[in-house]
Amino acid sequence: MSIQQQQKKLNIGLFGFGVVGEGLYKVLEQTPTLNAQIKKVCIKHPEKKRNAPQELFTTDPAALLQDESINVIVELIDDADAAYHIVSTALKNRKAVVSANKKLIAEHIEELIALQQQFKTPFLYESAACASIPVIRNLEEYYDNDLLHGISGIVNGSTNYILTKVFEEKISFEEALLQAQYEGFAESNPALDVEGTDAVNKLTILLAHAYGIMAQPQALVHSGIQHLHAADAVFAREKGYEIKLVAQARKLDDGKIAAFVLPQFVQKDSQLFNVRNEYNGVVIESRLADKQFFYGKGAGSFPTASAVLSDLSALRYDYKYEYKKLLYQQPGQLTNDLFLRVYISFDALFHVPHEKFERIEEWSSSDKRCHVTGIIRFARLLDTSWWKRKNTSLIVYPDAFVDKIPEKRKVEEDVFSLV
Amino acid sequence: MSIQQQQKKLNIGLFGFGVVGEGLYKVLEQTPTLNAQIKKVCIKHPEKKRNAPQELFTTDPAALLQDESINVIVELIDDADAAYHIVSTALKNRKAVVSANKKLIAEHIEELIALQQQFKTPFLYESAACASIPVIRNLEEYYDNDLLHGISGIVNGSTNYILTKVFEEKISFEEALLQAQYEGFAESNPALDVEGTDAVNKLTILLAHAYGIMAQPQALVHSGIQHLHAADAVFAREKGYEIKLVAQARKLDDGKIAAFVLPQFVQKDSQLFNVRNEYNGVVIESRLADKQFFYGKGAGSFPTASAVLSDLSALRYDYKYEYKKLLYQQPGQLTNDLFLRVYISFDALFHVPHEKFERIEEWSSSDKRCHVTGIIRFARLLDTSWWKRKNTSLIVYPDAFVDKIPEKRKVEEDVFSLV
Repeated sequence: MSIQQQQKKLNIGLFGFGVVGEGLYKVLEQTPTLNAQIKKVCIKHPEKKRNAPQELFTTDPAALLQDESINVIVELIDDADAAYHIVSTALKNRKAVVSANKKLIAEHIEELIALQQQFKTPFLYESAACASIPVIRNLEEYYDNDLLHGISGIVNGSTNYILTKVFEEKISFEEALLQAQYEGFAESNPALDVEGTDAVNKLTILLAHAYGIMAQPQALVHSGIQHLHAADAVFAREKGYEIKLVAQARKLDDGKIAAFVLPQFVQKDSQLFNVRNEYNGVVIESRLADKQFFYGKGAGSFPTASAVLSDLSALRYDYKYEYKKLLYQQPGQLTNDLFLRVYISFDALFHVPHEKFERIEEWSSSDKRCHVTGIIRFARLLDTSWWKRKNTSLIVYPDAFVDKIPEKRKVEEDVFSLV
Repeated sequence: MSIQQQQKKLNIGLFGFGVVGEGLYKVLEQTPTLNAQIKKVCIKHPEKKRNAPQELFTTDPAALLQDESINVIVELIDDADAAYHIVSTALKNRKAVVSANKKLIAEHIEELIALQQQFKTPFLYESAACASIPVIRNLEEYYDNDLLHGISGIVNGSTNYILTKVFEEKISFEEALLQAQYEGFAESNPALDVEGTDAVNKLTILLAHAYGIMAQPQALVHSGIQHLHAADAVFAREKGYEIKLVAQARKLDDGKIAAFVLPQFVQKDSQLFNVRNEYNGVVIESRLADKQFFYGKGAGSFPTASAVLSDLSALRYDYKYEYKKLLYQQPGQLTNDLFLRVYISFDALFHVPHEKFERIEEWSSSDKRCHVTGIIRFARLLDTSWWKRKNTSLIVYPDAFVDKIPEKRKVEEDVFSLV
């Protein structure tokens, strides 16, 4: 265990020169102590004017990937398929890689881990989940010894911004989305945010580091805020809740892991209650440390650049993800065998799918909007045809996980036989 | 940059077998994947019954410190002087050290860094600041590239527990302290908590990792909650504040660092507002990442054991603190040249030291209690004889740092010429 005195010199090949890339270039220029220099930048559009010397740029990926003097590739492009080619080639060429591309990582995580193993080359992507919040590294380093009960987080800044605006300024979801796009928090394709795709990509990455689970993001139950209705916001306000889009994974009594991204009512006593605007927050619950909470900006160029820089800094002392839960322990196992307490609202009474519920606890109906609160078999959400349709919104309750289903009360059966 | 495949086997010599030590022993026994084993435990009282094999124990420190097969010393004793001897001897014998002793570390940090350098041996102490919250490591790894504007935190679980009880259950400070002791959150000598000594020790450690500042804890302006008055809680409630004991360091416009531990009014929009009971929370503000917040249990045996385990885990892959701000950059420089907005309350009007204020903004007086709000020259707090006396309480405002002192208004001068 010796103290390492020499810091590696990082010669960086950068893909992409958007706001994050340019910001990174500037910070590295201004901070010689970092001992890191961008040698070459690969761009798609050479005709664009850039705030950097012309000779830095190329349109040829091989000029970076084949350059033996470059020992680190930083990938900051939008196109996940091109990014996949870049990252995997770089690892094969034994160049360390830093990427912020959550879609790429989530969809190829198993293969990317195998490449890291095979070529003994590190691949870091702290900015891919919650941007500036060091959640991946903390899951790797802090919870390998400690029984992890669960994680739950607001991992998409754009939808959280929208929900905050809807609640605080009482504007419509549509108007709030426009504001988020204007502020630059939304993905270039806002559907990725709004439909929960971005959040479920991040959950996939968190599952790998929290539980060693290799999941396909699209196979995980997930939704966004696309179908939330103004009446849901009214209902939440009356009960003292906020609505948040929450990504969560939880170890159940049988040791298996439940994981999903769904809108959730959040109570005042939850740390997630106070996560507003484009901020992200993650609550980690474990046996020894109990509840921990990490909070920070989850969207925007600076927070992303901040996380990329911290990855570069980590590479200087040979840091790598160890994927401890996957490689050194028994990986977790996903399950759909659980019950959730949910609220579902509909535009008309005849749309209430009461047969989907194991137990209905509360319901209300008006000529404008109906809603039902009850316990549902999680596996029923695998069929999205009924709960993801337009004008139907599903929101999980704060005490989402139900151990046992109480028997139906007679009166309810009677009421619903009328429907 | 190669992926390290072999994990070190840790042979541990443990000093102290209290709740944390015993917990650590149990977890390591139950978790062979950690590849860490306690070889020998040095205790003070061999006559006590222990829940571990007799042959594990010794009363001879040399049996651990001189044992060549032991490569890690974990120090978990209460006595800071004895701990100093243990830690420095271990480092000289090139054994990695993990300690939870904030007093020892705060008071000897410069020397302990020199020993780490000289003997090229790591010394980790994540549990010494905010127990389970990985704040030291995050300050080391995440903010070396990013301009750190400031940190402010609730770093003492015991006083925070007391303040929470006073506010939520409206009981007296004395009664709340008894409850904290009963719950096991208070230090064995509660004065260390209540008078801010523990908090300023932690601030000293944070200053080293945040800014490379080597400070003497006792030389930093600090106070605890010992003189807070019931009337202060009433005042805070009326304004919608909570009172928290906040340790903070902030980079001023001149680039120098202000640092202190003082009670502070905290507003609802601050993340610290929601840190309750024995929890700790630290807000880190930086240029790129903006505001980050780390939250978790700051007191108790399990959170401490959790942090010790994470240090052991870090040793397995040769992690060490780099003290980047101190060793690779220009270290920060402390200053007392600043102005603070404070509230001071007193038992009688003739105790109001209005001459200490640069500007008085508000004052009120009754036959029970007087208070003054105004701007004070920070350096005046170096003389503690007036503001740390019994029946005087000083609380910092949320917008504590005042750039410039506005000119006195005529009316105030008139009012105060009457006092």
